[in-house]
Amino acid sequence: MFATVESEVRSYCRGWPTVMRTARGAWVTDTGGHRYLDFFAGAGALNYGHNNPILKAAVLDYLASDGIVHSLDMATTAKQRFLETFSRLILEPRGLDYKVMFPGPTGTNAVESALKLARKVTGRETIVSFTNAFHGMTLGALSVTGNSMKRAGAGVPLAHATPMPYDNYFGGATEDFHWFARVLDDAGSGINLPAAVIVETVQGEGGLNAARVEWLQELARLCRQRGILLIVDDVQMGCGRTGPFFSFEVAGIVPDIVTLSKSISGYGLPLALTLFRRELDVWSPGEHNGTFRGHNPAFVTATKALETYWATDELTNETIAKSKLVRDRLDCIAATYDGICVRGRGMAQGLKFDQDGRAAAVCRAAFDRGLLMETSGPADEVAKILPPLTISESELTAGLDILAEAVAVTAA
Amino acid sequence: MFATVESEVRSYCRGWPTVMRTARGAWVTDTGGHRYLDFFAGAGALNYGHNNPILKAAVLDYLASDGIVHSLDMATTAKQRFLETFSRLILEPRGLDYKVMFPGPTGTNAVESALKLARKVTGRETIVSFTNAFHGMTLGALSVTGNSMKRAGAGVPLAHATPMPYDNYFGGATEDFHWFARVLDDAGSGINLPAAVIVETVQGEGGLNAARVEWLQELARLCRQRGILLIVDDVQMGCGRTGPFFSFEVAGIVPDIVTLSKSISGYGLPLALTLFRRELDVWSPGEHNGTFRGHNPAFVTATKALETYWATDELTNETIAKSKLVRDRLDCIAATYDGICVRGRGMAQGLKFDQDGRAAAVCRAAFDRGLLMETSGPADEVAKILPPLTISESELTAGLDILAEAVAVTAA
Amino acid sequence: MFATVESEVRSYCRGWPTVMRTARGAWVTDTGGHRYLDFFAGAGALNYGHNNPILKAAVLDYLASDGIVHSLDMATTAKQRFLETFSRLILEPRGLDYKVMFPGPTGTNAVESALKLARKVTGRETIVSFTNAFHGMTLGALSVTGNSMKRAGAGVPLAHATPMPYDNYFGGATEDFHWFARVLDDAGSGINLPAAVIVETVQGEGGLNAARVEWLQELARLCRQRGILLIVDDVQMGCGRTGPFFSFEVAGIVPDIVTLSKSISGYGLPLALTLFRRELDVWSPGEHNGTFRGHNPAFVTATKALETYWATDELTNETIAKSKLVRDRLDCIAATYDGICVRGRGMAQGLKFDQDGRAAAVCRAAFDRGLLMETSGPADEVAKILPPLTISESELTAGLDILAEAVAVTAA
Amino acid sequence: MFATVESEVRSYCRGWPTVMRTARGAWVTDTGGHRYLDFFAGAGALNYGHNNPILKAAVLDYLASDGIVHSLDMATTAKQRFLETFSRLILEPRGLDYKVMFPGPTGTNAVESALKLARKVTGRETIVSFTNAFHGMTLGALSVTGNSMKRAGAGVPLAHATPMPYDNYFGGATEDFHWFARVLDDAGSGINLPAAVIVETVQGEGGLNAARVEWLQELARLCRQRGILLIVDDVQMGCGRTGPFFSFEVAGIVPDIVTLSKSISGYGLPLALTLFRRELDVWSPGEHNGTFRGHNPAFVTATKALETYWATDELTNETIAKSKLVRDRLDCIAATYDGICVRGRGMAQGLKFDQDGRAAAVCRAAFDRGLLMETSGPADEVAKILPPLTISESELTAGLDILAEAVAVTAA
Repeated sequence: MFATVESEVRSYCRGWPTVMRTARGAWVTDTGGHRYLDFFAGAGALNYGHNNPILKAAVLDYLASDGIVHSLDMATTAKQRFLETFSRLILEPRGLDYKVMFPGPTGTNAVESALKLARKVTGRETIVSFTNAFHGMTLGALSVTGNSMKRAGAGVPLAHATPMPYDNYFGGATEDFHWFARVLDDAGSGINLPAAVIVETVQGEGGLNAARVEWLQELARLCRQRGILLIVDDVQMGCGRTGPFFSFEVAGIVPDIVTLSKSISGYGLPLALTLFRRELDVWSPGEHNGTFRGHNPAFVTATKALETYWATDELTNETIAKSKLVRDRLDCIAATYDGICVRGRGMAQGLKFDQDGRAAAVCRAAFDRGLLMETSGPADEVAKILPPLTISESELTAGLDILAEAVAVTAA
Repeated sequence: MFATVESEVRSYCRGWPTVMRTARGAWVTDTGGHRYLDFFAGAGALNYGHNNPILKAAVLDYLASDGIVHSLDMATTAKQRFLETFSRLILEPRGLDYKVMFPGPTGTNAVESALKLARKVTGRETIVSFTNAFHGMTLGALSVTGNSMKRAGAGVPLAHATPMPYDNYFGGATEDFHWFARVLDDAGSGINLPAAVIVETVQGEGGLNAARVEWLQELARLCRQRGILLIVDDVQMGCGRTGPFFSFEVAGIVPDIVTLSKSISGYGLPLALTLFRRELDVWSPGEHNGTFRGHNPAFVTATKALETYWATDELTNETIAKSKLVRDRLDCIAATYDGICVRGRGMAQGLKFDQDGRAAAVCRAAFDRGLLMETSGPADEVAKILPPLTISESELTAGLDILAEAVAVTAA
Repeated sequence: MFATVESEVRSYCRGWPTVMRTARGAWVTDTGGHRYLDFFAGAGALNYGHNNPILKAAVLDYLASDGIVHSLDMATTAKQRFLETFSRLILEPRGLDYKVMFPGPTGTNAVESALKLARKVTGRETIVSFTNAFHGMTLGALSVTGNSMKRAGAGVPLAHATPMPYDNYFGGATEDFHWFARVLDDAGSGINLPAAVIVETVQGEGGLNAARVEWLQELARLCRQRGILLIVDDVQMGCGRTGPFFSFEVAGIVPDIVTLSKSISGYGLPLALTLFRRELDVWSPGEHNGTFRGHNPAFVTATKALETYWATDELTNETIAKSKLVRDRLDCIAATYDGICVRGRGMAQGLKFDQDGRAAAVCRAAFDRGLLMETSGPADEVAKILPPLTISESELTAGLDILAEAVAVTAA
Repeated sequence: MFATVESEVRSYCRGWPTVMRTARGAWVTDTGGHRYLDFFAGAGALNYGHNNPILKAAVLDYLASDGIVHSLDMATTAKQRFLETFSRLILEPRGLDYKVMFPGPTGTNAVESALKLARKVTGRETIVSFTNAFHGMTLGALSVTGNSMKRAGAGVPLAHATPMPYDNYFGGATEDFHWFARVLDDAGSGINLPAAVIVETVQGEGGLNAARVEWLQELARLCRQRGILLIVDDVQMGCGRTGPFFSFEVAGIVPDIVTLSKSISGYGLPLALTLFRRELDVWSPGEHNGTFRGHNPAFVTATKALETYWATDELTNETIAKSKLVRDRLDCIAATYDGICVRGRGMAQGLKFDQDGRAAAVCRAAFDRGLLMETSGPADEVAKILPPLTISESELTAGLDILAEAVAVTAA
C-alpha cells in the first residue's frame, strides 16, 4: 500500500521497514507484535513518551465532553487555560515578558512567522543563520536551512539569508564571531545589516553540534549591540530536551523571539508557538493566519504536560542526570574505537563516525536489535539518541547496550 | 488573558468577542452558555460539523487503545487504513491515478510542496496564480497569494510568481485567457513559461469568486497544450464543500497536482495531503519533510469520515440541495435591496455589498443574533456563508433568517 | 580574424558579412569599395549621419587643442557648455525643469540609474514595464525587457518587474489599461503598487509598436493619480527620431524621469543622460558612479549637434516630412501584397510580415542590393527602417526603391 | 551651472572645486590657468596620460579620414586591426587562448557579461565575491560589490551573490580560504556551489588591498578543483597598472574569464572587453548586446597604445621601478608618524590612516597644493596614488613631495 500509493518522499519508513500499530512510553509495537525501544521520540516531539497516560486521560475527557476541537483563533476555554498555565509555569518564573502567538501547528510555520516579524520590526530583509542549521521546509524557513539537498528542493534561488559559521565550525582554530563581527563592522563587506539571527542552541538535524554557553552569550551580546534581533529556534531543543524548559536558559540569555513546537503539546499533537518580547508585537490582526492555529486537544495536553512536568524542577534534574548517564556510556564507546566522537547535549546526544556510512549501519544494526535510532548531520555521519525524557534508567541502559552492540558489530 | 498574553495578530476573536467552550454539529456554546449557529465551520475545516459523533467514537477508541499518535513518516496501521480507504473510495472511483504525499498538516505546507514539486519536475521557476487567490502564509504560498496586506507581511519582495486575471475579473468584458494565452505565445512578453498554474475553483478568501466550468476546462487545456502543470488548491473547496469530493469534478478536468487540508481529517484535526499524477513523483526521500506528517488520530477520523460520507453520493446530493436552498434565499435578499449581489457556489456562498463596511456590519449584527459569519474579499466586501455540510435544513433556514434580519437592520 | 578571435555573441556582422572601412552621411563603404546606404544608422545612434562634417570639425578642434578627454564627474568646460546648451535649447523651451545626470555612457546605464532613483524616491521595489519592451542588457534593465532569449541570458530569475500589455496588444479588442488599472485598484490582485512605469513611446526593438498619443496621456494620468513615477526610455526614439526632440512631446506629457543615449552625442560617441524632475534628485554623492561619465569629446559633439539642429524647428519639420514620404511608400508596398502591414512612427517605421522568416529574407535581399536594414520584433517579423534624419529625400527614395524590390523578390 | 543643472550624484567635482579645461600627460589645467599634477589618472583610465600625443595623432588621422566611428558589432577595419594586435601582442605571448567579447563600453557592462556567461556555462546562480570588492553600478555588478552605501542604492535586495573574506581580511590571524573551502566542502553549509568567483588582484576602490601571489594561486586551485569559474576583474588593475599587462600574471594563473576596461582604449575613450577561454564561448548571437560595442576611435587608440607600449617589456619594467620609488617614499612617510600604513601594489598604492577623516584632509591639502588625489576604502580611510604610468620620475617625486607635505600639515 505504501509503496504503491504513498509518495517517494517518505524516508523514515525506509530505515524502519515495518508497520507500527501501538505505542506506550518509550516503546512502539508493530503489527507483528515486535516491540521497539524508541530512541527517536518523534524527532523530539514525544518528550513525555508515547500515549503518556496523564495526558491521555486529559485529552479523552476533553474530547468526550465535546470540548471545542477546532477554533481558528477564537477564544476558547482550552486556549485560555493553556495561556494562563504557560504564563504561570513557564514565562513568569523565568521573568520572560513574552507575547504568545499561535502561527499554525508546525515548526516551520513558527519559523516563518518569526522571520516575518523580525523583518517587519526592523524594516530589514536579511536573516543570518548558521552552517548546518535546520529550520523547516517552507520557502522562508528553507532559506535559513543549510542542507544542500533540501535547499535544492526549493526549485528557486533562496534569498535574503546569509549563513555564518556555527560554534566550533573550525574546530576551535579561529576566534568566535571572527567573521560575523567583522562583516557587520565593515561597511564594505557586502553583507547588509541583518534583521535577525536565527540559531539553534544544539543543532539536532545538523549533526548534534552543541553551542557552548559562552558562544551563545557572545552571540546575544553581538546582536544586542547592533540592533539585530535574536531568534532562538527551540522547536527541537525546547520543552526540556536539554534539561531546562528552554534550551537557552543555561546561557542566561533572553532571545527576542523564540519558536516552539514538537513537544509543546506533549502528546505528539500538532502545535507551535512563536514567543516574542512584548514590544515587538507589531502584528496587524490577521497579518499571519492559518486554519489550524486553534488545535484545542493540543492545548489541553499541553496544559496538562506543563502542570505535570513543569511545576517543579524535577524533570529538569532527572533529564540532567540521564544525560550524564548517556554521556558516560557514549564516552566509553568512543574511547573503545578510533574514529568516533561524542556529540550533543542533554538528551540529544550521539556518536559521530569518521567512516562513511557507518552511522547508518549502526542504526540498521540497532533496528535489527529492536532499537529505533536515526542518523543526523550533512553526511549522515552521526547516530543520534533522542529518547523520551520520561524513559526509565533501565530502559535507557538497555538501549545504550544495544547501541554499544551495534557499534561493535559494525566495526571493520 | 487573551489581550494580555496573546499576540495582536489574533483576528476572529475580535469579531466574536466571547470565549467558546463546547461545540456539537452546527452549534458552538460559550462560557456564558450562549449558543451560536456556526456558519463559518472552521473556515471550511468542519464540513461534518463539530465533534461529529461517528468520528468522535473512532478517535476515542483509537486513543484509548494506545494506537500510535505521532509517527513522522513511518508506516502505521492508521495511515495504511487511510491510504487504502482514500484510494478505494476517492481515487479509484474517479479514475485518478495519484500518488499521496503527507506534506505537514496545514494547507500552506501542502501548497509549498506542490510548488516545489512543480518546479522540480519542469525545471522552471515561475508559478502563475490568480487575482485574489489565497494559498497560505509561508513564503512560497504567500508569493501566490493576492491580498496586499498579507503580502506586505512577508517583509521581503515576493518573487517567482505572476498573477493572471481570475474568471470574470473584467465582468465578462474580455475573452477568457486573453492576456494569459497572449503572453505565453509571445516570446517578447516578458513573462517566462511558468512551471505551473495554481488555482482555486472558488476563491473562498478572495471574495467567493466562482470560476465557471468552461473557464476551468479552458485553463486545463491551455496548461496541457503548453506543458504547464495545473495545481488545484482544493484546501477549502475540496472534501465536498461544493458538492462532489473534489471541487474540480464538475469541470471534468484532472489536475496534475491537488492540495487538500481543512476538512480532510473531518474532525478539525490538522492534516494535509498533496496528490499528484504518478509520473510526477520525482521526490527524493526526505526532500520535503516535517514533524507532524504522521498525525494518526487525524488519519483515523479521516478514514471514518470517508467511510461514513463518501461511500455513496448521498452527501454530494444533499449538499447540492442545500446549496440551492441557500442560493434561493440569498437571491431573494439581494433582490430586495440595491447594491447587493450573490457570490459563490455550493455551500460556499455569500452576499457582496457595494457599500463599504456593510458586510462587516452584517456579520456583527448576525453575531449579536447568535450566528457566526465572516467577511471575505480584498475589501471585506462579502459576507460569507460556510456552514457544516451536515447542517439540517431547519438549522440552515434559521441561520438564513438571521442573515436576512442582519441585512435588514444594517440597511441605511 | 573575427570568427577566430571574436565571441560568438556578435550578431549584426552575420547579416552584413563584409568589413566596413569608412562612412559619411547615410553611406558606409567596405574594404572592397562597395558602398551601402544605411537604413539602420547605428540602431538610432547616428541621427545626424556618419561623420557629420559640422560635428567632426568640432571634435577635431577639441582633440587637437588638448581639451580634456576623460574627466569622471569633474567639472570641465566641455561639460559646462553642454549643460548650458542642453538647458537653453532643449529643457527651457519645453518648460522642463529637469536635473541632468550622467550615469555612464550607455542606454542600459541610464535605465539602471532611472530604476534606482525611482525605487529610492518611492521606497517601493516593483517596476511595471510593457510587453516587448527593450531597455538594456544589464541585470536591472534586463528585468524590464521582454525578449525571452535575452531574459534567459541572465542566468538568474529576473525579479521586481511586472509586464503590462502595451498599446494595441490585443488589437483594440480591450479597453486601454483594463488590466493595469484593475490590478492597481484591487488590493487582492497580487501586484504591489509599483515604484515606476517604464515605457518607450515607440518600441524599436520590440517590433516598431507605436503607442497612440491618447494611450500615453492616459498612462501618464494613471501614474500621476496613483503616485507612480513615469519613466520614458527615449534612448532610441529621442533626439528627434520621431520628429520632436523628445518622442513624448506629441502627447504633451511630462515624464518624471527620461533616459537618453544613442544619438545624444550626435557623432556615435558613447554618452547617456538621465533626466528627472528637480524634486526627485535625492541621490547621495557617488551613489551611482562609473568611469566614463565624463566623456568630453561626446559633450563637444553633443553641444554642436544641439546648436546645429535644435536651435530651430527645421529638423523636426523635415523629419515629419520625410516620415510621411516613408509612410506613403510603405503603405503602397503593404497594399500590393497580402500579409504585410506598416508599423512605427516618424523615422522609425517598417513592414511587418505575417510569413515566418520573410523579414530576414527582405533584409538579406536589401543588403545584396546595397541597403543596410535590420529586423525587429519578438519573432524578427518586422523589417525596420531607421535612416539618419539628415538623409536626403533622394537617398531616402533610393533606399525605399531597394526595399520595394527586396519585398518583391522575396514574395512567394 | 553644475549645481543648478547637474544631479546631486556628482562626487569628484566636490573635492576638486574647479573647472578643468585642458590636459596633457600628468597635468590638468583649469579655466583659471592653474595646473594640477594628476595622481588619479581617471581612476585608472589614463595609464598613458592625458592626450598622449602618439594616440592623439592616431585618432585625429582616423577621424579626419572618415573612418567609421560607430558600428555596433559590425566588422570594421579598426576592430580587425585591434583584434589582430591584441592577439599578437597580448594574448599569444602569454599563451592565453581567449575569445574576445565587446560587451558595451564600460567596466560594469563587462562584469555583467562575465556573470551571465559564468551562469550560462555552469547552470548555477551564485557568484562568490570578496569583501570590499567593487565591480560596478548596474544591478548584476552591484550584487558583487561590497560598499553598503552603493548597495543600498539598488533599492531592491541584491541576490545570488555571497561575499568571502579577501586576502588578509583577518590580518593574517586565520588560514587562507578557511571559511570559503569549508563551506564548499560541507553539504550543510547553506552556501550553494557557486557558478564563479569574481576577484580583483588589488582592490582599488576597496582600500588598495593587494592579494598576495600565493593567495591568488590558492584561489585559482580551489576554483579549478571544484569546477568553479574564476573571473578576474582587471578593469582597474589591468593594462599595466601593477606592472605586467594583466595584473594576474605575477601569480602565474589563468583565469577563465577576464574583464578589461578603463585604460584599454588608452586615451580615456569608453571601451571594455570580456575575455574568456575559447571553450566557454557558448553565447548565442545577440544574447548580450548594446549600442556602443563598436566604438572605433577607441579601437584605434587601443591598437596604437598596444603597439606603442606593449611590444616590449619596457613599460612593465619602468612601472616596476616607479612603483618601488613610490613604495620607498610611502614607507618613509608611514615610518614618520603613528597610525599610517602603506597599501597597494604597483602604481596603485596609498596611505591608510587610522584617524577618521584624515585621508580626506590629506587629499584636500594636496589639492590646495596642486595635486589631484582621491580617497578609497569603505571608510574613505586610504589616500590613493594612481598616477599615469607614463609619468616622469621627476613629476612623480614632485607629487610625492606634495603628499608628504599634505600628511605633515594634517598631523594633529
